[in-house]
Amino acid sequence: MNTEFISQIQNGSPLAVARAITAVERGGAPARELCRALFPHTGRAHIIGVTGAPGTGKSTLVNALAKEFRAREKRVAILAIDPSSPFSGGAILGDRLRMQDLTGTGVYIRSMASRGQLGGLAAAVADALVILDAAQFEIILVETVGAGQSEVDIAKHALTTLVIEAPGLGDEIQAIKAGILEIADVLVVNKADRDGANAAVAALQMNLNLNPNKHAWRPPILKTIAPTSEGVSQVVDAIYKHTAYLDEHGLRAQKERARFDDGLRALAQREWLEQKMHALPPGQWDAWLAQITQRQRDPYSIAQEVLAS
Amino acid sequence: MNTEFISQIQNGSPLAVARAITAVERGGAPARELCRALFPHTGRAHIIGVTGAPGTGKSTLVNALAKEFRAREKRVAILAIDPSSPFSGGAILGDRLRMQDLTGTGVYIRSMASRGQLGGLAAAVADALVILDAAQFEIILVETVGAGQSEVDIAKHALTTLVIEAPGLGDEIQAIKAGILEIADVLVVNKADRDGANAAVAALQMNLNLNPNKHAWRPPILKTIAPTSEGVSQVVDAIYKHTAYLDEHGLRAQKERARFDDGLRALAQREWLEQKMHALPPGQWDAWLAQITQRQRDPYSIAQEVLAS
Repeated sequence: MNTEFISQIQNGSPLAVARAITAVERGGAPARELCRALFPHTGRAHIIGVTGAPGTGKSTLVNALAKEFRAREKRVAILAIDPSSPFSGGAILGDRLRMQDLTGTGVYIRSMASRGQLGGLAAAVADALVILDAAQFEIILVETVGAGQSEVDIAKHALTTLVIEAPGLGDEIQAIKAGILEIADVLVVNKADRDGANAAVAALQMNLNLNPNKHAWRPPILKTIAPTSEGVSQVVDAIYKHTAYLDEHGLRAQKERARFDDGLRALAQREWLEQKMHALPPGQWDAWLAQITQRQRDPYSIAQEVLAS
Repeated sequence: MNTEFISQIQNGSPLAVARAITAVERGGAPARELCRALFPHTGRAHIIGVTGAPGTGKSTLVNALAKEFRAREKRVAILAIDPSSPFSGGAILGDRLRMQDLTGTGVYIRSMASRGQLGGLAAAVADALVILDAAQFEIILVETVGAGQSEVDIAKHALTTLVIEAPGLGDEIQAIKAGILEIADVLVVNKADRDGANAAVAALQMNLNLNPNKHAWRPPILKTIAPTSEGVSQVVDAIYKHTAYLDEHGLRAQKERARFDDGLRALAQREWLEQKMHALPPGQWDAWLAQITQRQRDPYSIAQEVLAS
């Protein structure tokens, strides 16, 4: 491993960090070696997940949170996950506008799409977090679009998870709240200057009453207007209150353990399959697939054969 | 395996099908045995993925499509995937309303959340499709909420993928279109009686021009008003046109192959990890996790040790 490159990353060089994240997006042996070298230098970053449906003004709010953390003299990175663009990386235009907004603030911003990654988006995100943590960012805001399995997977990495809502997004969004609420440590009703903000807060309150959190931490519900930063400082205060609560109750270690439990499983599976595919006789995999598509054999028994091979 | 149960499923008994899907949601050996027994009887269903952001009226449109296929004398099942409710199964109320709408139509409807599943939602969906296919449903509509990695994973199972849009859902939704468009075989602008429907069609046209489909099939863009079924028959016609295109160009087998390629990888990985975890000495996994959380060792080298163990 290039020790010069490693120390550049550790010193937080934006160029080195960008190169390193591109390497983990590509995957393979170089990514693995890099993360291995950096891992001992991690564990100090506060990873904050921010999730919410399209239309909630999430990106603007994440920018405002980043600026508030900067005002509190923290080193801040934003990792914007765009799982809806697996092929074309469709968020580029939005990124440029956001980067303009953050110019001169010292906030590092990077977006990731799942395109071209071995082992999927979750694995690349886990590796990117290793890099940002080793690069001494104290606050890492991980932003996810929409509400789906990937959000839940990514929430596992976060010490604190924010769920963003906004007034008037329609009934279907109301219906999906129950599930997403359970990953929330802090709830934010953004666009609070719109009609229906108080109704949205009341609906969330009711939902919380119906689904009391098993860990006894009741997520606060806060109102924000992201473009003017109204309420943003209170959200940051709530984030710190949440981490203080975790520390008081010895839950920080438990959260970290759960994160690495999932991560290690995924990593081991990925490495195993990679080795296995390399070791198969040429044409064997294709022959199996042909047997399955022709219904001569079933995938379940072939999976057993892969294991035994 | 209970042959009585197997033949009840094959005869399409709603009760047996429901029990079978519950079994695959739970996972483990019973699910595997069941799918293994049913797999040889699959391959006839036309799996249609329907995806789109919250607020597009997707569920109402799926119901309308189901009724149209019924009118064409097809046996129809709906599999509604709700990945946003990994814990509490939050879609129950919505399900009841939908089921009322379908009462007496002979459409089988089932929702799945990722809660409590070994191996994740994608694996359980794959198994549920085996069951519905073996139960002789000719049309299986797989409906996914939102736009995320899970949508892309699930689109892989489908022979035809519909992407639903609606006018006036805000800029953020426009921004995510580029990625989701690439999985679309048929594009639908629902709520076409609203302002901005023609603008939405024009925006999609432009997007298609910017991102021409590599397979030369150009997705048609159709307008619907789901509650009155306006335009729904044309969507069904477009679906059949798409499958005819696949058959003419020998692409059906290729799609099936890609589906089982992913499925077999995921299945083998899941089975391997299950065996491995059972074979580890008691306390070994916990000891590894402790070493990682204390940064004494890194997950990458421990993954190698898991493989070697």
